[in-house]
Amino acid sequence: MRPRLVLFGDSITEQSFASGGWGAALTDRFARQADVVLRGLSGYNTRWALKVLPRAMEGAAGAGADPAAVTVFFGANDATLPDQVQAHQHVPLQEYQSNLRAISAYFKERWPSTAIILITPPPIYEPARIRDVYGEDDPSRQPERSNEAAGAYAQACIAVATELNHPVIDIWTKMQEFPDWQTSALSDGLHFTPAGNKILFDEVVKTLESIGFSQERLPSDLPLFHEIHPKDPMKAFGA
Amino acid sequence: MRPRLVLFGDSITEQSFASGGWGAALTDRFARQADVVLRGLSGYNTRWALKVLPRAMEGAAGAGADPAAVTVFFGANDATLPDQVQAHQHVPLQEYQSNLRAISAYFKERWPSTAIILITPPPIYEPARIRDVYGEDDPSRQPERSNEAAGAYAQACIAVATELNHPVIDIWTKMQEFPDWQTSALSDGLHFTPAGNKILFDEVVKTLESIGFSQERLPSDLPLFHEIHPKDPMKAFGA
Repeated sequence: MRPRLVLFGDSITEQSFASGGWGAALTDRFARQADVVLRGLSGYNTRWALKVLPRAMEGAAGAGADPAAVTVFFGANDATLPDQVQAHQHVPLQEYQSNLRAISAYFKERWPSTAIILITPPPIYEPARIRDVYGEDDPSRQPERSNEAAGAYAQACIAVATELNHPVIDIWTKMQEFPDWQTSALSDGLHFTPAGNKILFDEVVKTLESIGFSQERLPSDLPLFHEIHPKDPMKAFGA
Repeated sequence: MRPRLVLFGDSITEQSFASGGWGAALTDRFARQADVVLRGLSGYNTRWALKVLPRAMEGAAGAGADPAAVTVFFGANDATLPDQVQAHQHVPLQEYQSNLRAISAYFKERWPSTAIILITPPPIYEPARIRDVYGEDDPSRQPERSNEAAGAYAQACIAVATELNHPVIDIWTKMQEFPDWQTSALSDGLHFTPAGNKILFDEVVKTLESIGFSQERLPSDLPLFHEIHPKDPMKAFGA
């Protein structure tokens, strides 16, 4: 039976199969080796995610084994500023951490052998957020998210991962290493361009490799074309 | 439990999660409504597909219900010319039809309620095939595939679909209605560009709609963001 990867997160996960998306790229990379299961919930924070977790995971595992890994990618909405227009998405930092612990505990209990990969919230480009929310460049407006808040939630996520001994992808820091990340990696100051998707994809692939989940180590499903001999094709199929 | 779509076919299915791919686009479209399962086998014809069918479908169905639909997209390799370099992929027309019947019968037996959607082989642009196979434009070379042969297999596929009362997508004809399809829809005279992927995606969406599988008719998984009221978010979660 093929191993499975489950992608659990907010809109950056839900949209990960749009053109150039990191979820689609994972499916493509492991096309003959693993199944990728999408469980993205746009707009959700960890409070709401925790509330729906058992229902969200219906059908996500196969009949047999636990998934090989699950990515848990929340925080972009938790980190929404509590005094701005999207305040209802905000979750306090301490609760964000305890929710991440509870989500991890749920997976640990339900799928004991599944690797839980935490992903921090991404960086925020505030001018693009103002344009996205208010449709204009108005210097009197405040963004509903800030890069500083996202960074604090990223640190909090890393702390939980360290505490629980889970692999973690610090996409907040990693993305800001790229030139012009504000517009090259982010499309609206929050969501990912194809280049931004590629940055996360590469990090997920590296993290999966670190837990032994790689193209090189996973068996391929059924004979590959180059293994089918032109002179005796049916031999590859045991005939 | 979410309904499932299973994509079964050759390289045009296996590569359908590359950037702009039709499989990824289906996953994106039904992100909150259905799971898309990839079972693409590059280079395979119907003879080999039939041989591995039970193993290929391991883990493709969920624990509970039959998949809502399966796309069966072979023929591009069956139609390889029997007197050219890829002759070992060739399957005679009559056998292609009987293999399609056998594949359909397998699904009908295993998943009685699953809609079986047949897809014809795509058109072929021969000059690009010569370049792809021989790496040059040599007028003495013959392509390993021809558009005429692909068309004959497309007709044969349609005949089987009609006989068995399955929906069918005639991508051979449809694609040739587009301007400059030879290079706008095909990247190497056989596989699809993003524009070619979009043509197939649109046809699959239309066909799924015809069997009642559509964004409008499928329930969405868990409360959508716009259904979560800013003044009382937890109400959407039954709290």
